[in-house]
Amino acid sequence: MATRGEEVVSNKQVIFRDYVSGFPKESDLYLTTSTVSLAIAEGSNTVLVKNLYLSCDPYMRIVMTKLEDNNLFSSFTPGSPITGFGVAKVVDSGHPEFKKGDLVWGTTGWEEYTLIQKPETLFKIHHTDVPLSFYTGILGMPGMTAWAGFYEICSPKKGEYVYVSAASGAVGQLVGQFAKLMGCYVVGSAGSKEKIELLKNKFGFDDAFNYKEEQDLNAALKRHFPEGIDIYFDNVGGKMLDAVLLNMRVRGRIAACGMISQYNLNQPEGVHNLMHTIYKEIRLEGLAVFSYFSQYSKFLDVVLPFIREEKIVYVEDLTEGLENAPAALVGLFSGRNVGKQVVVVAKE
Amino acid sequence: MATRGEEVVSNKQVIFRDYVSGFPKESDLYLTTSTVSLAIAEGSNTVLVKNLYLSCDPYMRIVMTKLEDNNLFSSFTPGSPITGFGVAKVVDSGHPEFKKGDLVWGTTGWEEYTLIQKPETLFKIHHTDVPLSFYTGILGMPGMTAWAGFYEICSPKKGEYVYVSAASGAVGQLVGQFAKLMGCYVVGSAGSKEKIELLKNKFGFDDAFNYKEEQDLNAALKRHFPEGIDIYFDNVGGKMLDAVLLNMRVRGRIAACGMISQYNLNQPEGVHNLMHTIYKEIRLEGLAVFSYFSQYSKFLDVVLPFIREEKIVYVEDLTEGLENAPAALVGLFSGRNVGKQVVVVAKE
Repeated sequence: MATRGEEVVSNKQVIFRDYVSGFPKESDLYLTTSTVSLAIAEGSNTVLVKNLYLSCDPYMRIVMTKLEDNNLFSSFTPGSPITGFGVAKVVDSGHPEFKKGDLVWGTTGWEEYTLIQKPETLFKIHHTDVPLSFYTGILGMPGMTAWAGFYEICSPKKGEYVYVSAASGAVGQLVGQFAKLMGCYVVGSAGSKEKIELLKNKFGFDDAFNYKEEQDLNAALKRHFPEGIDIYFDNVGGKMLDAVLLNMRVRGRIAACGMISQYNLNQPEGVHNLMHTIYKEIRLEGLAVFSYFSQYSKFLDVVLPFIREEKIVYVEDLTEGLENAPAALVGLFSGRNVGKQVVVVAKE
Repeated sequence: MATRGEEVVSNKQVIFRDYVSGFPKESDLYLTTSTVSLAIAEGSNTVLVKNLYLSCDPYMRIVMTKLEDNNLFSSFTPGSPITGFGVAKVVDSGHPEFKKGDLVWGTTGWEEYTLIQKPETLFKIHHTDVPLSFYTGILGMPGMTAWAGFYEICSPKKGEYVYVSAASGAVGQLVGQFAKLMGCYVVGSAGSKEKIELLKNKFGFDDAFNYKEEQDLNAALKRHFPEGIDIYFDNVGGKMLDAVLLNMRVRGRIAACGMISQYNLNQPEGVHNLMHTIYKEIRLEGLAVFSYFSQYSKFLDVVLPFIREEKIVYVEDLTEGLENAPAALVGLFSGRNVGKQVVVVAKE
């Protein structure tokens, strides 16, 4: 294939070894170095990007499993770099909407350079007065998830009782702050003392508890929500969801955003209390953020001012270097990260 | 208390013995005979009705259990007549909206005569060219359930794949017919050969299967829905719901109308596949028909013409006599009834 340029450089990559069962291990991924031409093929409308920040997200565990093709997710390909959301800079472009030097976010590979086959899925970054890494989080997929899940699926009203699990994570910390801005009463749960402190003192939750210290989740929820829960933003599923169902109020809403407690189990836990959806006319709705991507500019109009006016804070956990990326990703599933887990591949 | 009339008559009643665990038995109910004055107290705005038809509905098992008060249902009171939906005739009225001889449907007692404390919850029956008993079914609570659940919760579209469980029951038979009228592909399941015949030959379902003859519900659903399910109208819950989740299509909708497979279990079965709500952006919504009662006249405008033009048929299973009412109600939970189970207390 003819190329417009000549420069070929090395390309460090994080490769997916094979489909995973149980908890993912660092050894399910391995590093390799290939080469990449910095110029794209003549006549191609692809875009070559240099990856800057990569996003570690819980859904990535889902696609480590071999999935049937009747759903919205596609499994990783064994022997290829894993993919995820990231922030990148355009190195060369055959696509009319992108030019060298553009900053973008969207789906990319876990490697230094990625040839984007469908550049139309990328979002151009126009606002750089905020940290670029925010486009892996508050201004990217997790931000859209929190926004669509809370405002669209949960139909919140001022004064309602809101519960958020995995509340210090990339999505949870935003949901809690959105809920406070709306005038809701918000309680979050997380898995360490440090995270509980963050929830109460940094993100402004009304209250928070460490689920690992609770023998009885139902009792913990009754203690924090004597009046019951109007909105549950579920990031964990399983036993917590089961306990929440007992404590929902009539016409409550549950955004099923993630079920991180279940992804690593070969047989997911059973949820026994679904009858309460009938007893209390509850709506539980799965959230696939892709469906809301067309509303990205509307989302930015809401969230950018929140950041600039410091109405919302955002906590990231930055890991430097692609060689540390497997540990960063695997760490998500033991809750090692505090705040949004990001891998810094390069700063520019 | 002063009464306007003098006539006192005997009143056969079906009394709730005590809260039930496991399958209800006939002995959980007992018959007794008390007396009732046929005239209501001076100054009262209650209404005395003579009960004609009583409705046996699966939800009645829910309220045989002692429930917490944070839900939409209220438990039966041990030592008192059970209550449910029925068709009745007004004998005496202190309420301005009702007069002697009016036909009504709504919540009443399982007894010959009931003093209705909240007459404003009754619906007046204006159309008597259809069987009166239909107001316990297609033109009453189950009809509203099918209508609201299908049209409001399931947001159906022509050509969609619809699955209905307990499909020959009071609600299921209507949902299937509504779905056919909308141009959907409809499969139902039930628990006997006779019911499967009804589904296919009387109600016009595209196909039907006997769930008791299936070793593997997932395989049965894959056979009947190779393209997957857009809409599941759930009357049974439990293992069937779990298998359905594996077979839902992207952006599918589940109306959680009933979970009759679970009501008699001390520990409900676990539903393991809720992660599919996320994988496929599924909405599961509990249906409490009470919330739609204000739309009753709109409902009648749709359903009465369907009956009169014979676009919909309705199958009832009539049991004669209050003394046979406990067996009729208990029979629901072993699927003994074929079609809507009604108890005929009196014909006029």
